[in-house]
Amino acid sequence: MFRTHNCGELRLKDVNKEVVLSGWVQKVRDKGGMTWIDLRDRYGITQLIFEEGKSDVALLSRAKKLGREYVVKAQGSVVERVAKNKNIPTGQIEIVVKHLEILNTSLVPPFIIEDETDGGEDLRMKYRYLDLRRNTVRNNLILRHKINQITRHYLDGQGFIEVETPVLIKSTPEGARDFVVPSRMNPGEFYALPQSPQTFKQLLMISGFDRYYQIVKCFRDEDLRADRQPEFTQIDCEMSFVDREIVLETFEGLTKYLFQEVLGISLKQFPRMSYHEAMNKYGSDKPDIRFEMLINSITEVAKGKGFNVFDQSDVVLAIVVPDGAEYSRKQIDTLTEWVKRPQIGAKGMVYVKCLPTGGYKSSVDKFYSTKDLKVWAEIAGAQSGDLILVLSGPKDSTQKAIGELRLEMGRRLKLMDPQIYSPLWVVDFPLLEWDDHTERYHAKHHPFTSPHRNDQHLLEENPGAVRANAYDLVINGVEIGGGSIRIHDRSLQQTMFKLLGFTEQEAKAQFGFLMQAFEYGAPPHGGIAFGFDRLCALMGGSESIRDYIAFPKNNAGRDVMIDSPSAISQEQLDELGLDIND
Amino acid sequence: MFRTHNCGELRLKDVNKEVVLSGWVQKVRDKGGMTWIDLRDRYGITQLIFEEGKSDVALLSRAKKLGREYVVKAQGSVVERVAKNKNIPTGQIEIVVKHLEILNTSLVPPFIIEDETDGGEDLRMKYRYLDLRRNTVRNNLILRHKINQITRHYLDGQGFIEVETPVLIKSTPEGARDFVVPSRMNPGEFYALPQSPQTFKQLLMISGFDRYYQIVKCFRDEDLRADRQPEFTQIDCEMSFVDREIVLETFEGLTKYLFQEVLGISLKQFPRMSYHEAMNKYGSDKPDIRFEMLINSITEVAKGKGFNVFDQSDVVLAIVVPDGAEYSRKQIDTLTEWVKRPQIGAKGMVYVKCLPTGGYKSSVDKFYSTKDLKVWAEIAGAQSGDLILVLSGPKDSTQKAIGELRLEMGRRLKLMDPQIYSPLWVVDFPLLEWDDHTERYHAKHHPFTSPHRNDQHLLEENPGAVRANAYDLVINGVEIGGGSIRIHDRSLQQTMFKLLGFTEQEAKAQFGFLMQAFEYGAPPHGGIAFGFDRLCALMGGSESIRDYIAFPKNNAGRDVMIDSPSAISQEQLDELGLDIND
Repeated sequence: MFRTHNCGELRLKDVNKEVVLSGWVQKVRDKGGMTWIDLRDRYGITQLIFEEGKSDVALLSRAKKLGREYVVKAQGSVVERVAKNKNIPTGQIEIVVKHLEILNTSLVPPFIIEDETDGGEDLRMKYRYLDLRRNTVRNNLILRHKINQITRHYLDGQGFIEVETPVLIKSTPEGARDFVVPSRMNPGEFYALPQSPQTFKQLLMISGFDRYYQIVKCFRDEDLRADRQPEFTQIDCEMSFVDREIVLETFEGLTKYLFQEVLGISLKQFPRMSYHEAMNKYGSDKPDIRFEMLINSITEVAKGKGFNVFDQSDVVLAIVVPDGAEYSRKQIDTLTEWVKRPQIGAKGMVYVKCLPTGGYKSSVDKFYSTKDLKVWAEIAGAQSGDLILVLSGPKDSTQKAIGELRLEMGRRLKLMDPQIYSPLWVVDFPLLEWDDHTERYHAKHHPFTSPHRNDQHLLEENPGAVRANAYDLVINGVEIGGGSIRIHDRSLQQTMFKLLGFTEQEAKAQFGFLMQAFEYGAPPHGGIAFGFDRLCALMGGSESIRDYIAFPKNNAGRDVMIDSPSAISQEQLDELGLDIND
Repeated sequence: MFRTHNCGELRLKDVNKEVVLSGWVQKVRDKGGMTWIDLRDRYGITQLIFEEGKSDVALLSRAKKLGREYVVKAQGSVVERVAKNKNIPTGQIEIVVKHLEILNTSLVPPFIIEDETDGGEDLRMKYRYLDLRRNTVRNNLILRHKINQITRHYLDGQGFIEVETPVLIKSTPEGARDFVVPSRMNPGEFYALPQSPQTFKQLLMISGFDRYYQIVKCFRDEDLRADRQPEFTQIDCEMSFVDREIVLETFEGLTKYLFQEVLGISLKQFPRMSYHEAMNKYGSDKPDIRFEMLINSITEVAKGKGFNVFDQSDVVLAIVVPDGAEYSRKQIDTLTEWVKRPQIGAKGMVYVKCLPTGGYKSSVDKFYSTKDLKVWAEIAGAQSGDLILVLSGPKDSTQKAIGELRLEMGRRLKLMDPQIYSPLWVVDFPLLEWDDHTERYHAKHHPFTSPHRNDQHLLEENPGAVRANAYDLVINGVEIGGGSIRIHDRSLQQTMFKLLGFTEQEAKAQFGFLMQAFEYGAPPHGGIAFGFDRLCALMGGSESIRDYIAFPKNNAGRDVMIDSPSAISQEQLDELGLDIND
């Protein structure tokens, strides 16, 4: 037997018990006559003690030779500690060891296995199995497990049935790139890995499952960014006979339940905001509403005064930095440089200081009178002592740029309290987005999203104006979930495919099964999917989803620990009927 | 709003309530003055009623025109039925409909959507979304969901943490064929889909997770059989600081808990049987112990009496068919043909009838005296009136053949009661199996299985005799789970790879990360994986795992509903740097 107890459970009440513990050597302290060992496992740390004169000589010398991360089994009796450690739950006791067995040795780890480590990202990823020994990393994954459990508990309680949908499916070029899987039994043909179980969950609604969920791996062959992984996990849900209201209520309920049960945080009712309001006020479709600093348009009043830059702009937008009138020239220059970075893309920035004395000082004093600037200040809601920052240009890019500037100011002014969670629903997204590159409409969500009932008549004449019956759950500026009421009518789905540039043949080849299914009594239905990795990171207080994935891939899509992807044998290629094209 | 209630919940106490129901039209009965509709959803069936004179004329005519599987929304009031239906929970009430809205129409389904359908396998698979509407099929998936829930409940309660391991991993030629996934970002390189999360769960043990589980999709590119799918689901578990006993206890506990909670069946303690005993007594490493009919060896007494067939055989094995002495010549001939089928592979069959009068009648009377046959009967445990069936030949193939014959007799004599579940643990498997084709040893389980401590000294001199510290859970002749105590020592793992014919370089290229991990304090560990699809089928009383998979593939690995695998575009191939080789 390797243990009678784990390393986290012995207490004063256990004194005098004979116990066996197994675990890792966290630390050896050898103070001449006494040797202490901190023995660690998932559950905690228990102190072992060896005493010269009392302990067997061979035992003592074995204990002194133990290295960090050795795996040992110790048998002994529990005694009360003289010097108690109040920082750990087992700190009142220690084990006087009688037998010690080395179960495995360890090389010196390449980095320190403690909460604060000296290992860099690359090293920790290569030795991820050692990185995972650190409490902080393991606790992230335990949090993930808990979020998983509580999600299931909620959905089970709401009558959702978990159904596993296939991983080997069919490639459909709409959307992101698919990972494909060559089929040996069907040479020249490929499966694809699902970007989401979208069509299958809709089929389950057509099958009458009524409420479906799945916590499921999905795959996208995209160029990776910090918060993207080629494989990621979704909480995927779908419901029949529902309108938007029921879906939002159900998943607002899930979110509140999760925050309450996992973090002890009680969330209030989630506000709703239209896509247009979010873009206008926050310059983002995933607004961080932990702080105000709303965007205001001064387009009407700023144009036509002879300032060429504004006159040639579609929009002139302003935000107010509270108490910013004291910013130095250098501070403002720094912000101007910041907005001119290619990621933000503004051409320049105009500022107006609302002086405590009541006057204004701006970078466009030449063109605008005090009276003009007073109107700006009124529209923007600036008080004396504040700073107004103004960006101008085409509507979409300027909204996005000033939205980014707003977030940057929020960061600099520490207005985004990580302890506060501010969820909201963003609704009424546009159904379609025009893509200049391909010169056609793309689905803003996906081709199965239903248009607003009131906007259906616009589908032919003005597709860009049609609102989707779609919704996103946004928390602290992070898109946590998104979904829609789906199309359940074959002819509407056909219209949609046509708008997206599918020929009838293409639509049939790729989604014929779904369109056919719509002809056999498809109920009204809708659903949502939560990004599970992001949800875990958000609830854990981190911005990196990698911290919440046991074995993540790097930005090149590689698993550096197992060294994958890798070459496969010629025999494998031959069986698959594939050649690598150099 | 689509509904105030579902179609399974209204009762007498709800009479006079105004309700809204939505669902599918199961049946329309038009009896002149009255029209009844059975409205179906996941939760049940509720009867709608339309009455001439009472109902609005337009409403009535709409109701009469409804077709099977139309989706409708009905508003009306609950009334007590005159003619109650005791077969359904809502049978005491019906709904007098005031408004009826057709939410969607339906073509006539290609097969009847009832428990007993007229649809063949192919048709049902092509229209799987309609097949899934049938109660029997949906109930299978609800059972699966329940088994999933209860498994998690048990494992969570035992301190197991669910950790998601990657799906895009690395191809390793040992074992079955991998499905591979070409990497666009790393041209010429491939990921592989996991045949199991084996190495990752071992790494999690090295990381100190102590107890891990996952209900996870796994993949094998094998030629398919009825009970195999290219993607399948495992309950995958691993534990640290355990010996075999703890693993067996824990998962015997899981199995008992599942049977109790899901089926209300209380299982007794599971017997243990060595691999050799199973092969000797049952001719199978997954014995069906619901019935006896044990195999006995009469090799010693049957050889050396001048019967050439037996003299040239390694073994002569017998089973006893109770009350079989009355079998006709024809019945025995049929059995002889059965064992000579290529799947069984016996060359012939000898029989001995133990006559009620005390004498014997056999097909080998020429070579064996009554006294000889009496000894056979004693060894085989045959009583007068019984029939002894005898196969002979090389040991392994003869054991398997008579094992199959035993099962066939069990089926014919209805000795395998589907209501009875007889689990057992099969233990002490051989570590290695010699493969004549490749002329080397293969791992009977996998290369990470640890040898019996007492047999380690045989690894060099007699590898074939080494027993593995491995175990299978077998229920009613079906292998439900299998696992082992793993190797956690680098040098033993190296020896193992060497025995399996790996060069040092190959071992390093494929499993270097694991061998390195063993050097940083790997704890003793072991685990098990349950075939989740098979477990569901077994508990549901079916032999086909397809009945318990929402969207299964056919024997050619095709999903006939979505028509996958399929060709991909030249653009996709180009991006992946692949050519299809004709």
